[in-house]
Amino acid sequence: MKIGFIGFGEVASTLARSLKSEGAEVYTCLAGRSLKTVELAQSSDVNICPSFHKLADISDIILAAVVPAQAVNAAKIIGKHIKGLYVDLNNVSPSTVKEVLRQISNGKTVDAAIMGSVTREENVPIIASGKYARDFAELNNFGMKIEVVGQEIGQASAVKMLRSAYTKGVSALLFESLYAAYQMNIDDLVLKYLAKTEGPNFTEIATSRIKNSIIHGERRTQEVGEVLNFLSEYEDPIMTQATFDVFRLMVDQVSSMEKKPDDYRELFRKIK
Amino acid sequence: MKIGFIGFGEVASTLARSLKSEGAEVYTCLAGRSLKTVELAQSSDVNICPSFHKLADISDIILAAVVPAQAVNAAKIIGKHIKGLYVDLNNVSPSTVKEVLRQISNGKTVDAAIMGSVTREENVPIIASGKYARDFAELNNFGMKIEVVGQEIGQASAVKMLRSAYTKGVSALLFESLYAAYQMNIDDLVLKYLAKTEGPNFTEIATSRIKNSIIHGERRTQEVGEVLNFLSEYEDPIMTQATFDVFRLMVDQVSSMEKKPDDYRELFRKIK
Repeated sequence: MKIGFIGFGEVASTLARSLKSEGAEVYTCLAGRSLKTVELAQSSDVNICPSFHKLADISDIILAAVVPAQAVNAAKIIGKHIKGLYVDLNNVSPSTVKEVLRQISNGKTVDAAIMGSVTREENVPIIASGKYARDFAELNNFGMKIEVVGQEIGQASAVKMLRSAYTKGVSALLFESLYAAYQMNIDDLVLKYLAKTEGPNFTEIATSRIKNSIIHGERRTQEVGEVLNFLSEYEDPIMTQATFDVFRLMVDQVSSMEKKPDDYRELFRKIK
Repeated sequence: MKIGFIGFGEVASTLARSLKSEGAEVYTCLAGRSLKTVELAQSSDVNICPSFHKLADISDIILAAVVPAQAVNAAKIIGKHIKGLYVDLNNVSPSTVKEVLRQISNGKTVDAAIMGSVTREENVPIIASGKYARDFAELNNFGMKIEVVGQEIGQASAVKMLRSAYTKGVSALLFESLYAAYQMNIDDLVLKYLAKTEGPNFTEIATSRIKNSIIHGERRTQEVGEVLNFLSEYEDPIMTQATFDVFRLMVDQVSSMEKKPDDYRELFRKIK
């Protein structure tokens, strides 16, 4: 089985390592890529193709994992030359996935979404949709953990977006209720009593959610913006608009600080 | 120990039964009360005082559990005659609690909040704050489950309000993300993948949250309105405003239906 990666960042290098260890042949192309990508590909000891056309030509399955802004362009460059399957692993909305996959002339395409962290989880779950999703799931024989969730392109990325709408909304709710609680010096109590209904490790999860929202604030805000555009096709996204506004406020506050606060109390103490 | 109840609805009758079984003497006054309250007091076999003044005179501890709109008036009627402790168990905001307790001339007052359902939980947890909260907690010797959370009036009800801001916000988030998911026919999948990060019984909790929001929509919307007023003293309550708007939308939809829908799918199917 020959697997070709378009983009060779954290996601690709992590998956490549695992696929190689299970006996797959892994390829990528470094034409026009950044020095960091080149180094990552070399240290991962994958096969290097001289051109994207060559990569398209030899790969049984192409996995595309580039930054969201490059997703459509990457597919345009290679789309006419794909012989096997093209799997979009990019973190983009269903409508962008559809645009990406329209570039693939042979029509053998899969919408896939990574449902976790490739670096934190040994075997990160991936969901996939589209008529060819089952073919992609053959990679489960090479140590991957792919679940086919539907027959239509867009479903897998929609599931990921909707999960994101919920979990980021929860972070924004925590931010808002704990900020008021902090001002009254009852944040510990509020967390303690929420834990009684929300589960014993609520406090730990809640504080780590706020901390992550502080650290990755800008990227998260952009992601909520994507979710907002997506949901607008189906309803007036009242909660998600509020989530976006809260994240933007938080990012504004953090950006005016000399260093990123380590936890929510430090953030709240410094809020102007 | 003589316990006097002002108001004798579900909360009072449930607590009275338990206090009596532990050996407390329980009193109430039925002057001007509804037929339903009279029946509930009689079936609970509590002692009836001919007037609120008499009730105030003989009670070691007065527990006030009336509907929110009557909280201040009930305290005004009895405030000058209280000999013992006056405990506000009403479901009102910290500023209303303070107004209620200002009516009690002897100043022996407690802010208390019921953190659960008296009907569903054998021994519902109650939190209490104020200088006299410890005296109220003596009722733990009579089977109650009171935790003192602070020295200031307003803290106990603030904890309850902030918990409410969070949990009702979560219900609104579920409503919004599942409504979009339902339209795409992926609501089961979204619930399933949320359960992987949010806990194994997430789907059950989530569907019961939406169901309860449908059944008790109007009361919940009013409660969110209270939380909104309260939070506005501390911040711009962006998420809670959105929660309020979503609840209002949901109540509008449900009120135009012939019968209340049984679950979220039935609700979504009928949304105009």
